[in-house]
Amino acid sequence: MFVRLRFSLALAFLALCAAGLGQTKYTEFVSKMADRGMNQLGAYDLLRDVTTNIGARPSGSPEAAKAVAWARSEMTHFGFQNVHLVPCTVHHWVRGKVEKCTAQDSDGTIQLACCALGGSPATPADGVTAPVIEVQSIQECAKLGDQAKGKIIFFNRPFDNAQIDTFAQYGRAVDQRIEGPAVAAKVGAVAALVRSMTSDPDNVPHTGMTSGSTIPCAALSIVAADNLSDAVKAHPELTANLKLDCQTLPDVQSADVVGELTGSQDPSDVIVMGGHLDSWDKGQGAHDDGAGVTQSLEALHLLKELGFRPKRTIRVVLFMDEEMGGRGTEAYAAYAKSSKEKTIAAIESDSGGFAPRAIGCSLKNVDKLKKWESDLSAFEADRIEPNRGGDADIAPLAPLGAVLFALEPESQRYFDYHHSDKDTLDKVNPRELELGSLSMATLAWLLSEEGI
Amino acid sequence: MFVRLRFSLALAFLALCAAGLGQTKYTEFVSKMADRGMNQLGAYDLLRDVTTNIGARPSGSPEAAKAVAWARSEMTHFGFQNVHLVPCTVHHWVRGKVEKCTAQDSDGTIQLACCALGGSPATPADGVTAPVIEVQSIQECAKLGDQAKGKIIFFNRPFDNAQIDTFAQYGRAVDQRIEGPAVAAKVGAVAALVRSMTSDPDNVPHTGMTSGSTIPCAALSIVAADNLSDAVKAHPELTANLKLDCQTLPDVQSADVVGELTGSQDPSDVIVMGGHLDSWDKGQGAHDDGAGVTQSLEALHLLKELGFRPKRTIRVVLFMDEEMGGRGTEAYAAYAKSSKEKTIAAIESDSGGFAPRAIGCSLKNVDKLKKWESDLSAFEADRIEPNRGGDADIAPLAPLGAVLFALEPESQRYFDYHHSDKDTLDKVNPRELELGSLSMATLAWLLSEEGI
Repeated sequence: MFVRLRFSLALAFLALCAAGLGQTKYTEFVSKMADRGMNQLGAYDLLRDVTTNIGARPSGSPEAAKAVAWARSEMTHFGFQNVHLVPCTVHHWVRGKVEKCTAQDSDGTIQLACCALGGSPATPADGVTAPVIEVQSIQECAKLGDQAKGKIIFFNRPFDNAQIDTFAQYGRAVDQRIEGPAVAAKVGAVAALVRSMTSDPDNVPHTGMTSGSTIPCAALSIVAADNLSDAVKAHPELTANLKLDCQTLPDVQSADVVGELTGSQDPSDVIVMGGHLDSWDKGQGAHDDGAGVTQSLEALHLLKELGFRPKRTIRVVLFMDEEMGGRGTEAYAAYAKSSKEKTIAAIESDSGGFAPRAIGCSLKNVDKLKKWESDLSAFEADRIEPNRGGDADIAPLAPLGAVLFALEPESQRYFDYHHSDKDTLDKVNPRELELGSLSMATLAWLLSEEGI
Repeated sequence: MFVRLRFSLALAFLALCAAGLGQTKYTEFVSKMADRGMNQLGAYDLLRDVTTNIGARPSGSPEAAKAVAWARSEMTHFGFQNVHLVPCTVHHWVRGKVEKCTAQDSDGTIQLACCALGGSPATPADGVTAPVIEVQSIQECAKLGDQAKGKIIFFNRPFDNAQIDTFAQYGRAVDQRIEGPAVAAKVGAVAALVRSMTSDPDNVPHTGMTSGSTIPCAALSIVAADNLSDAVKAHPELTANLKLDCQTLPDVQSADVVGELTGSQDPSDVIVMGGHLDSWDKGQGAHDDGAGVTQSLEALHLLKELGFRPKRTIRVVLFMDEEMGGRGTEAYAAYAKSSKEKTIAAIESDSGGFAPRAIGCSLKNVDKLKKWESDLSAFEADRIEPNRGGDADIAPLAPLGAVLFALEPESQRYFDYHHSDKDTLDKVNPRELELGSLSMATLAWLLSEEGI
């Protein structure tokens, strides 16, 4: 590209505003937020801090405890009001140091890049060795019956590449990881291997929680899964050996971290805005969910710093234990239920720090909110989409009457990094991250000004 | 993110289609293209080939000649019709091996990362040494008058970070690079330095064409520009030394590469689809414009492979010399003008291989095209935007009656890489690249079926 002048929606919006056309009640708000936010890029500074000075912060770990202290300290430093912790007792599973998978056939030994799934028990020190049966679904596994006894079950249904939305790809494959190992255990398998939940064909395994498995289970990288699949087809007598020394430790006392700008007119009407403070132990938890955490902090910080005092309370809630089962989610929902406040809305960012594309909303009909799209599109969240927005951490607030919103960024790269060593700071673009923050701040402000 | 089911526009579209709702005339087309395109990811294979086996391919270079041969060969291999070259005589400027900039003040010597601007003359072997005057605009430079004599003029107006669209940032800063050195020469300066056209605050300089400069001129990295600016403020007596051994060689015979699927009903109605085959000599020309080239090839290849025979001719044109002044652009426009065909539309991809967001269109009113948005949104090109689309290579086709379209992908990262060593294959996501290809193929198909 040599030179060209192109005018985007966002620019057209600002240009129209400058001409006094296309003005909304919030034009000045949007302009001030753009100016401060995009020049300071504060979300990225926060993300650099938490990812490099704390790093991965799995539920129950010393790093998760550090993250709680860090978040509380940042909120206090920013001058948020009512900064406090909501205690919760969380899971504490640790990966250990041994993660090794090999397959032996008549041609020799194949090394298979793997990592334990969250919640997996350990193997004996010399591992579990058994023949491998490849299946494409948990249903196929359940039907194996006695055939599965003493075997290693290998769940290998790939992402459906033709699906454009990668969250749909994930949603249609992840039952293998969450339920597969428990189903395999039920039919007598001795271990389970699961193809990583990604379409990125590299040699990096992607972890994630599995539920109720009594047998050792690990994710294989895509390269390893493809190699094992080929080897099983060529050598049906093949055996694999899996060694893991992960373990579940006693529960740990932890907390959600909460801070707010208290509403000036209706302080008991609360708009929650947040992400989850824990991460997987792989990588640095940059996109998942350092992004959501730092975007939420930055959004409230910008409102505070620029002197926008909300009519209704805007509250940042940073949830603990999302990856391990959501004890922090439950704790905050119980806290909200027992309070005299009303949570009118909740906004979650847990789809990565990529450029915004839309805001998902749990309402079936969002016609009344469409007027907000011109302000939100200034930060690339071009649309409010109905029947969406029910992300994990805020979903329990819906029964309390909250309308749920989710920041929906561009999704193509999320599962390349998700739950793996690749989820690091360098995968996050500072401007894209900030645009998410500004979208969230704008939505929170609109909700605070106008209610729902 | 633990688990969630989210339904995107694209998924909703496909789900509706499966239910027989939301069907358009093109539902089957979209579904077949998604299935083949997203499973094969052919654009990325082509991009890997051209970036790693040829690499950077600046106009006039042996690598540009290889790229012409490669593109012609791929078109022939894919079975395109009427594959041929449109000759053009192109610029041939070479960077040389010496690019060095230092500043000397009373505290010592500062190393400043730099690279020559395209078209710059060389310095003497020991460089140009002179005091530095920093300016924020070409107007400020022009007003210096005699003060500028014998000086090095340093254009240092940064991108406006508050602008959300990075192409708008670029458009508002790039006059310093294109016109600045010539303006500096006119007032007697001996060299010019220009802040790189990026907002990425690293130490990598970004090159680009400058126009009509008779004095040596170079881009400074953002780190170097900030350091030099600080140093000039602290030490107004500071001098800088710039050494370049770039040169302009005689023009070279080259060509645009053309291939098509000839229309079955109206073969003389032509829809052009393309990008530019030349790149800068920095990096691998992956986003700029390996993306546009390979997306165009892949789009026509998919149509051919899946047996979609167009009513009107769909023609891929890969332009030469875009970065150095557009001789290939002129040559193809002259070719189109002298032919008996009518170019009814032209689609360009020259904004990087990121996920599509919109299609820009040169029409003032796109109401009649809005019905196409539901099909295009399946590949994330969610909207057709009026008054846009006049990219460099296809702009000369507008006077011939062509309606212009431009693929508009997410823009935030483009200028991080643009014209620099960072524009390499690893910055391109295979799925995002393919989505651009599918958007272009769909638009070309709609234009072929329905005209404009």
